[in-house]
Formats: sequence, C-alpha cells, structure tokens
Amino acid sequence: MRFFSDNAAAAHPKVIEAIAASNRVDTAYDGDDLSQRLDGVFSELFETDVRSLWVSTGTAANCLALAALCPPYCSIICHRHAHIEVDEAGAPAFFTGGAKLMLLDGEGAKITADAVSDACGLIRNDVHQVQPAAISITNATEYGLVYRAAEVAALGKVAKERGLALHMDGARFANALATTGESPADVTWRAGVDAMSFGFVKNGGLNAEALILFRTELFDEVAVRRKRAGHLSSKGRMLAAQILALLEDGLWLDNARAANAAAQTVASAAPHRLVYPVEANEIFLNVSADEAEHLSRRGFDFYDWGPGQIRLVISWDQQGEAVDQLASAIRAL
Amino acid sequence: MRFFSDNAAAAHPKVIEAIAASNRVDTAYDGDDLSQRLDGVFSELFETDVRSLWVSTGTAANCLALAALCPPYCSIICHRHAHIEVDEAGAPAFFTGGAKLMLLDGEGAKITADAVSDACGLIRNDVHQVQPAAISITNATEYGLVYRAAEVAALGKVAKERGLALHMDGARFANALATTGESPADVTWRAGVDAMSFGFVKNGGLNAEALILFRTELFDEVAVRRKRAGHLSSKGRMLAAQILALLEDGLWLDNARAANAAAQTVASAAPHRLVYPVEANEIFLNVSADEAEHLSRRGFDFYDWGPGQIRLVISWDQQGEAVDQLASAIRAL
Amino acid sequence: MRFFSDNAAAAHPKVIEAIAASNRVDTAYDGDDLSQRLDGVFSELFETDVRSLWVSTGTAANCLALAALCPPYCSIICHRHAHIEVDEAGAPAFFTGGAKLMLLDGEGAKITADAVSDACGLIRNDVHQVQPAAISITNATEYGLVYRAAEVAALGKVAKERGLALHMDGARFANALATTGESPADVTWRAGVDAMSFGFVKNGGLNAEALILFRTELFDEVAVRRKRAGHLSSKGRMLAAQILALLEDGLWLDNARAANAAAQTVASAAPHRLVYPVEANEIFLNVSADEAEHLSRRGFDFYDWGPGQIRLVISWDQQGEAVDQLASAIRAL
Amino acid sequence: MRFFSDNAAAAHPKVIEAIAASNRVDTAYDGDDLSQRLDGVFSELFETDVRSLWVSTGTAANCLALAALCPPYCSIICHRHAHIEVDEAGAPAFFTGGAKLMLLDGEGAKITADAVSDACGLIRNDVHQVQPAAISITNATEYGLVYRAAEVAALGKVAKERGLALHMDGARFANALATTGESPADVTWRAGVDAMSFGFVKNGGLNAEALILFRTELFDEVAVRRKRAGHLSSKGRMLAAQILALLEDGLWLDNARAANAAAQTVASAAPHRLVYPVEANEIFLNVSADEAEHLSRRGFDFYDWGPGQIRLVISWDQQGEAVDQLASAIRAL
Repeated sequence: MRFFSDNAAAAHPKVIEAIAASNRVDTAYDGDDLSQRLDGVFSELFETDVRSLWVSTGTAANCLALAALCPPYCSIICHRHAHIEVDEAGAPAFFTGGAKLMLLDGEGAKITADAVSDACGLIRNDVHQVQPAAISITNATEYGLVYRAAEVAALGKVAKERGLALHMDGARFANALATTGESPADVTWRAGVDAMSFGFVKNGGLNAEALILFRTELFDEVAVRRKRAGHLSSKGRMLAAQILALLEDGLWLDNARAANAAAQTVASAAPHRLVYPVEANEIFLNVSADEAEHLSRRGFDFYDWGPGQIRLVISWDQQGEAVDQLASAIRAL
Repeated sequence: MRFFSDNAAAAHPKVIEAIAASNRVDTAYDGDDLSQRLDGVFSELFETDVRSLWVSTGTAANCLALAALCPPYCSIICHRHAHIEVDEAGAPAFFTGGAKLMLLDGEGAKITADAVSDACGLIRNDVHQVQPAAISITNATEYGLVYRAAEVAALGKVAKERGLALHMDGARFANALATTGESPADVTWRAGVDAMSFGFVKNGGLNAEALILFRTELFDEVAVRRKRAGHLSSKGRMLAAQILALLEDGLWLDNARAANAAAQTVASAAPHRLVYPVEANEIFLNVSADEAEHLSRRGFDFYDWGPGQIRLVISWDQQGEAVDQLASAIRAL
Repeated sequence: MRFFSDNAAAAHPKVIEAIAASNRVDTAYDGDDLSQRLDGVFSELFETDVRSLWVSTGTAANCLALAALCPPYCSIICHRHAHIEVDEAGAPAFFTGGAKLMLLDGEGAKITADAVSDACGLIRNDVHQVQPAAISITNATEYGLVYRAAEVAALGKVAKERGLALHMDGARFANALATTGESPADVTWRAGVDAMSFGFVKNGGLNAEALILFRTELFDEVAVRRKRAGHLSSKGRMLAAQILALLEDGLWLDNARAANAAAQTVASAAPHRLVYPVEANEIFLNVSADEAEHLSRRGFDFYDWGPGQIRLVISWDQQGEAVDQLASAIRAL
Repeated sequence: MRFFSDNAAAAHPKVIEAIAASNRVDTAYDGDDLSQRLDGVFSELFETDVRSLWVSTGTAANCLALAALCPPYCSIICHRHAHIEVDEAGAPAFFTGGAKLMLLDGEGAKITADAVSDACGLIRNDVHQVQPAAISITNATEYGLVYRAAEVAALGKVAKERGLALHMDGARFANALATTGESPADVTWRAGVDAMSFGFVKNGGLNAEALILFRTELFDEVAVRRKRAGHLSSKGRMLAAQILALLEDGLWLDNARAANAAAQTVASAAPHRLVYPVEANEIFLNVSADEAEHLSRRGFDFYDWGPGQIRLVISWDQQGEAVDQLASAIRAL
C-alpha cells in the first residue's frame, strides 16, 4: 500500500476521459479551444483577471515563474526545506540564469515575515552581496502545514516594502484550501502573491500543472521562456483538458478534501506521535526504527525522514480500507 | 482540411489506450515498469546497447542532448534552417549555457561533410573564436529530404576527424526510414551518430519523444539535466506507454509509411511544381499568390513559405479522401 | 615593425605616469576620487548626464552593456563581422545568459537601417523564433569605416520604432571622431545610442576601457553585473587614472588623429589597392601572396585577411620613419 | 589610518616599476615574453609542472577555476562565510552556469574533512538533489586562520574518495605560508588541490592575480573561459610583470611576513579580546560599541563585524608608527 508520495497516484478517471476526448486535430501549442479557455476559468476562480499557462511539471511551473520574478544576479528567499531548494536539481538557478536561493529556517517549512525582514537586514546593500528580489513560499508546505491568508498577507507586506516579488509553490494548493476554506483569491493575489504554481498532478491530474500570473504583464516573457525551456507541447490541448476536467464542478477540491480527511484518520490514530500538526495530506510521525520496520513489513510504503521519523502521504484516491488499515497499524505500534 | 503541420494531429487510438492502461499507481518518475522497458526495446531496434529517456517535446530532446555534447563555450554546426536555429526560441543556448549555432547553407536543409570541413577551416584555432564541438542534422530535414546512411557516415567521418560530436534531430526519423528502408542502426550509430531525438509526437504520439544515447556514458548527466529542466514527469509511465505502443508491431513505421505515401500522391499531382523532391511527408510547392489563395478558399490549410511557395505536411492519419481532394485541387491549378 | 594590431602598442607615457601617481592608499573599488570623477568628465564630454564604469577589456565593456540591454531569450542584431560575433569567444551569450546574435551583411562591416528593418521583417512574431531586442554597431567598424551621426540616427530611428536598444562598440571611437569631427554627443545619444564602450586600450591606454550609459537608470544593474563577472578591480583608481589622463587636454583625440594621419600616409601609397576607404587607422589592401610575403620579409608584421588581402593597423605611437618605410614598401610593390 | 582592508593598499614600488618597464610594443594577450615566463616560475615555486593564467581580480581567478571544476548542475562545498559565497555577487553561479554553493559551518571559516563527509552523507544520490562536485577552501581564511598541509591533505583525501575536485582561494596565500613556513607544494597539490587562486593584489600587486592549475589538462578550457568572460587583457604583459616582480627574490613572502608581524603586534596588545587566533594579517576583536567609537575617533578605520566585534586588516606596507599607535590605542581601551 503506497503511502510514499502522492506524485505517482493514478489520475482521476475524468482526467483520462478528458484527454481521450481532446484527441482530435486542432491548432497546435496553446491555440486550441481548451487552452484558450484556461484564462477565463482561472480568472473566475481567482475573482480577478489572471493569465495562465499549462506546463507538465511543478518544477517547470515554479522555475518559469521565478525566472520572470528574479534577475540572474539576485536571490530568492525561501525555506531551507523548500522543494525548489531540496528537490528540483538546481532548476531555479538554471531557469533564472544563476539566481541564488537564500535559505531561511522556520517551523514546518513555513517562513514568516519577521524571518524575511531579519534575513534581509543582514545583507549589505552593495554590489558584493547578492540582493534578494523575490520570496517563494510553498502552500501547503513540504511538511504539510498551511499558510492562512493573513500569514501570506504579512509576507506580501514585507515583500512590498522591500521591493520583492512573492511566489507561491502550490503543488498542494488544493489541499491547503480544502483545510482552510479560504478563497483562492484571499490567499494569493489579495495577499500580495505575484505568481503561483497551481498543482494538479498530485491531485488527480496526469501531467498538467498551471502557472498562474497575477501580474498579467509577465505573460509574454513567461510564454517565451516556456518555449525556450522545451515546455511548449504541440498538443497542449491534452494538458488543458486535464486542468479543465479537474476544475469542473470542484473536482480538484473534492479530491483534496478526500486526501485530507484520510490524513486526519491516520493522524488521529497517534496524535502524540505527530511531528507537525496535520493540515493537509502529509503525516510526519515519530517512530522508532523497529516500529518503522514493523509498518514496512505490514506492507505500508513510506519515506524514512531521517532518524526516528517517517513521512506518509495520502493520495486523492486513497480512502477506505487501506487508510483504515494504516491507522490501525499505527495505533497498534 | 489541415495540411499545416503534422504536429497537431490526433494521437493514434492505441496511444490513448496505452495511456489509459498505464493509469495505475506505480513508482514515480522513470522507475516504473514501462519506463524501465525502454532501454531494452530501443537497444533491440538499434541492434546495440543504448540508453534512452522520454521527454515531452522535441525541443527538450534536442537540447538536452546538445547540452551533453557541447560545452557552453563551443558551437554546434547545423543548417541555417534547422529547427534548433529557427523554431526553438533559442533553447540550444539556454540548455547548453550559451553555446552558439554555426550556420551552414545546403540544398533542402541538408548539410554535407564538405560544407562542415570548409566552415571549420575558416575558424582560427585560438581562444578568440568559438570552436565547434558538435554537428546537428535533422533527418528527415525541415524541407522533407532524407539523409541516407552513407551521407550520415560521411558527416560522422568528418566529425570524428575533427573531434566533433554528431547529433540527429529525428523529429521525423520514422518518415526518413520509411522512405529509405535503411535500418535504424545504419543511419545512426553505425554512421557515427552519438545521440538523437527519436520523434513520436508528429507520428501518432501524444506528447512523448525519446532521447536516444548511443554514447551510453552520457546517461547520468542527461538524466540530471532532464530533471533540472523540469522535464522529469512524476508519472513518466504515461510517456513510456505511448512510445511502447508506437514501437509495438511497427506501428511507428506504418504511420510514417502512410503519411509518406499520401505525400507522394500529392506530389505526383504536380511534379513540376515541387521545390524539393518529396522524400518524407512534407511537400513544398511553387504556387502563385492567386493559386495559394484558391487552395485556401477550397478549405486547405497550409503554410505560406515565403513568396511563391507553400508548405504542405501530411499527418499519419491523413489518407483517403482529403488527400485525394488536395491532389486534385493542386492538379487543377 | 608591428602593424599587426593596435591592441598591443605601448601605453602613452602620461598613462603610465598617471598609474604611478594613483598608487596610494585610497578607498577600494570605485569609491576613490579618480573613479568618482569619471561621470562628471564624461557628462561634460557628451553634453548630457551619463553614468560610466571602468572595466579592463573591451569585451567586458561590450557584453556588460549588452546584458543590460537584451534579455537572455532575445537577440542582438549586428554585422556578421562584428567583434562581438567574431572575436569575443561567445562572450555576448555568456554575459546575457544565452542571447543570440542576429547577423547582417553590409559593406565594410557597417549595417544600415534598411538592413535592420528587412531582417526584422523576416522574423515571425511568435514564441518560436527569437525576437530581437538590441542593435549593436561598431564605430569605427572592424574594417575601419566610420558611422556618421546621420547614419547612426537612422539606426536609432528604426531601433526606436521597433523597441530595440542601440549599442555602440567604440573600441576605436576616438579614431572615428578624429575623422568625422563630429561631436561625441551627436554620434551617440542624440542619435539614439543607449550605451557604448568607449575604447582607450587601443589608443594609448594600458588596460582601461569605459562603459558609458546614456540610459543612466541602467547603472545599478550594470554595476552588479560588473562585480559578478569579476571585473570590479579593488584598486580601480588605476583604471580611472588612465582614462582621466587620456581625456585630459584631448590626448585621446590627439592619439587618434596621429594614427589616422599615418594610416592616410600608408593608404595614399596605393589607393588602387584599398579594399575599403581608409577612414580610421586600419588599412585593408589587395596584395598577392608574393607581395604579402615580400612585405613580410621586409620586416612588416600584419594580418593575413583571407586570400589576396592583408590588414594593417596603425597604432597611436606609430608615426614617422616606420610608417614612411611601410608606405614606400607598399608603393614599391 | 586605514585598517579597513588590505585590498586598497598601494602597490609595491617594484610593481609599478615593472609595469612601466613592460610598457613597450609586444605580442598581445598572453603571447609576450613576460606572460610566457609565468608557467616556468610557478612550476619552480610549486616543484611540479603547473599551468598558470593571469587575471585581474580574485573573483575571476576563483570562478574561472570553479567553472572548470564543477558542472552547472552540481555544487561546490564551501564555508558559509567563504568569499565566494559572501562577497562575489553570485559570480560562482555566473561562471559555472548555475552551480550551487553548499554551505558548511566551521570555526574561523575553516571547514574540516569530517564536516564535508557529514554534509555529503545527507544528500540523496538521485537526480532530484544537487550532487557536490568540488570543495573550495580559503587559505588564509576570511577570519585570518591558516590551513596546515595536513588539514588540506585530509580534505584532499575526502575529496578523492568522493570524486570531488579541490579548489583553494589563496587571496592571502602568502600570509598563510608566511605563518606556517610550509612549502607551496605541500599545502596545495601534494595535499590534493587541483587549482588555486594565488593572490597578489592584497600583497603588493596592483591588479594581477594568478590562477594556478595543478591539473594542467584544464588549461585550454580555462583559457577559453577567461577570454569569454572578458578577462583576456590585450596588454597582459603588464599583469605578468606585476606577478614576476613580486615573485622575484621572495618579495611576496617578505610583504606577507611584514603584514603578519604587524598583525601580531596589534594582537599582542589585547590577547583577551581576540575572537580568533591571529594567524595571518587579520585581527578580529571583541570591543564594545563605545570602544569601537573611541578607536574610530582616534582616526583608525576598520570594519564593524556585527555587534561587539571589529575587523582590522594589516596591509603589506603598514608597519612602524601607525601599527604601534593602533596597538597602543587598543591596549588603552
């Protein structure tokens, strides 16, 4: 039973259907009807005019945005455990042309406005030290915590004061919103976010992610950068189709809610073992090596997270028996 | 009737079926069973041990290979009308870190060993001038011509003499082989090709291309570069599935043969108008502006190719009536 | 007798004196008194407020400017024989992060406004083709021709119409002005030039060049890029000292006039052999291989310029006997 | 009295003389007699065949070496306070094409073999995480500590075991050797160093640094990269002249010994205030804000080094009265 990651789950059947339905001759790249509908759909969702682009991975979505927000000779402030720092093979430096990540600490992979201010305060304002140009946060974070709109707004405020752009890696944006119930608008552009990756792959999609630009004037540059990075699929309609299928009737939120609920079931089996509060679909547990091995032998796949900790991630389609078995096994440790 | 390009055709139904069939939980990235089968399948096809990687666009396949073959401070020799020069938004410079394209002339977008030698001979061997490190050819070319194994071998010979790597952009590799009947091995590694893009998207695939490394020791570097460029899809099985579906029972060659045959039908309608011999699925015709407009009004979509010329491209699924109508219309001009 | 290039001549004695005189403890980098005087001196010379930076090579001056004028995903229009294309080892791509040079033809390495317009007209305005962002001209050109203010203004006009920046490589700017007698202002910012390299090394300097920004708002970015490229010397006063010494009392123009006059002496020895009109300090002659060898055996060093041509360059300190001997030898061929 | 840094001191009179003496027509770039002598002189000094290149700044020397030692998709392990991380404006990322710095802690800006091993042990060996390719150490360190040959050898051993290159930033290499009395060979290539920056600018030079390649096969690549970065001065003889002048008769070691001795004089004035042992020409002192202001008012220039600390640096030409006054003033606090 795979609780290793949500990145390899099956796609939702409606996504596969949508791909099949989009399989016809049409204009290439993003000129097709489906691709052309994205801006409208996202603008409605975010209650403001946005521009959007499909890409096939979260790394591409993150780094194309960052390349438009940060010049090569500046830095991007992020958490020490941010996906862009830890799991993207240096893609931010590749896409930006050498920009640096400036790493902050913070509980549960969250960063605070104060931490940003303190860090900026330590940088001499001269040509010898790399000056920050952007902040990137992940919501939900790599440890399954959620930024509330007010927290993002505090970061947005310090960003504005210091002339920094604000980027959100929303690989698990749906899981975050499913928990807080806040509106997409409140936690993004109303809080000062300039661009975001809106994740679908971990939430029922097959290989489509959306890059949302609240600063719509960045679209032309990002569109060129997408092509230049080899991310302009000629049959882009199959990417748009996936996104539209998941946005329709709130399927994206339904999927996220299901995963989050299952995560709560697991979390409630051993609240005293939780390393972090469970606010999305990831559960980090304190378990001994023996206990971990025991779970493993019972057939549960998970991620060793350094000594004494494991990570469990629930996918959108994991409900019912497997989750109950996992909860029981953890309770019984 | 779309004769504009083969890049926006529908995918073959078996490809869609294969994607649907691959939609299950599995290991992420390229650890799944389907992805793991690719090396074997391609090694059999090429009659030698190769390493292979799926990517989602031809630009990515081309430029990941070039980045491994050419250092940032060198140049890649290619035709002035090569796709990497004309239609990839500068991606070669992006992926390589600034390598230059050194442009050659040549009939029908083909380059010759002599032209390569002559061009190299003009470069002073000092640190002021950019030294060539690789040759890139497109087979079939952007003008629908085909390199025979002997021609590639001549390029391979000059490449070896001058210490240059040899890359093949095989976006329409299937169409080339369908015409020559030569073996994949003869026209590639036996002729000195180090790495190639093996195209599927224009030939029945949805969004999967293969990057084939005949110099297998390049695999680790290319795999890192693929991730770093945001091209490591987490559900890579859906890309592998497409490739396997097309390779099975020679579907890729069947598709190419169908497109090529249709192209011959069209070409035979007006042999005196052909700008280039038709050796693959592209037809370039001399037509007047009036004639072009006439065809257009008849419902045929094509590409204006500068004054007095048009480009028609046949897709794998375009046979029968539409093609016959096109041929008739051209004959009747 | 060295007529090979003007890049290896001795520095003017006043330059050496100025370096020695600047050899005292002072603030590092460009905070010293001499460096701080540059903006004022150049602003006076150009009759407008400019910002300036010293660097130690023309390649650095050119490419730092281009990096500020052209994003990585765009191109710089220049002559096929421009120094940035032919003799800078790909530095423009390195400094810009991958921008492309778009090469034009033109007599004597000059480009015209019409040629720029024509070339731009051939580029499809889409994300697949690299869009131009800047024009770079060399004045005097690599073949010793000079742009008049009106010619630059015509390029400035087309640049403005098309949203392109205009850069001037002024490695031999002094030689150009010495010939035309036009004002520095007229041939640069009044004609639409945004940034230029003002050369001193070939004209009596030791290793100091100036980068002049007419768009003064670019200064901060260029200053960071200079440091990032390792070009911020800690004892920058020795670079500023050279520039100030050459600007004082018009020494830079005197040096250029001397070199140009000597070039005229040589040119007048064989007007029928001139490949290009001699408008600066370079002379290109049609000579047979035998004649070239004869000159060489007489002790004259020069540059073979392809079959049947040689290049002779006069340095600021080459007057009198050596030049007369050269003229005689050519006359006697 | 300037104790702010050693980077803005005057050059040694013999350096100025050597520049003046080199001011004659000669071959350009590094083809002149002086430049051609460098390999021999350094090979003798290091007791092995080395290749060497002059450049004009330490940042260029460091980053050209790192670009040859670390591919764009890997990382360079260094101390958190290394000059390449803190004071080079992101130049390592620029020169390498995006390589990452992997930051270690360590007393006095020194890193240990154990710290390197531990850090490497935390990196998953997959394509998602950036893999290290090189270690860079600074000797003497940014806090004035010195690596002994045995310490470097321990780092060299771990580097070899893990397939990492080893780079030394020797901006104050002379100061380090002046303290340890060890041989240049023992503390570099015999200990596993592959390439180093040999600093002269802070030690009596004007603007010449040497990049020493113990892996001599890297020369061609580095020479191209130097040109491409705009660091190939056309009158390179003036850079070679400086280096030769300082190496002759051990002037470089004399200068460093003088600075180190003066630093000991200052250190001995307040041993209880030393933040680090004084092993080169830098002194870090614990002083209160009032005390710092007092020193400042007495006319001593220094660097505030965070709350409660100041940095004093002695230059090669600072001996005698000024140093005695500084020592007295510190003693009297």
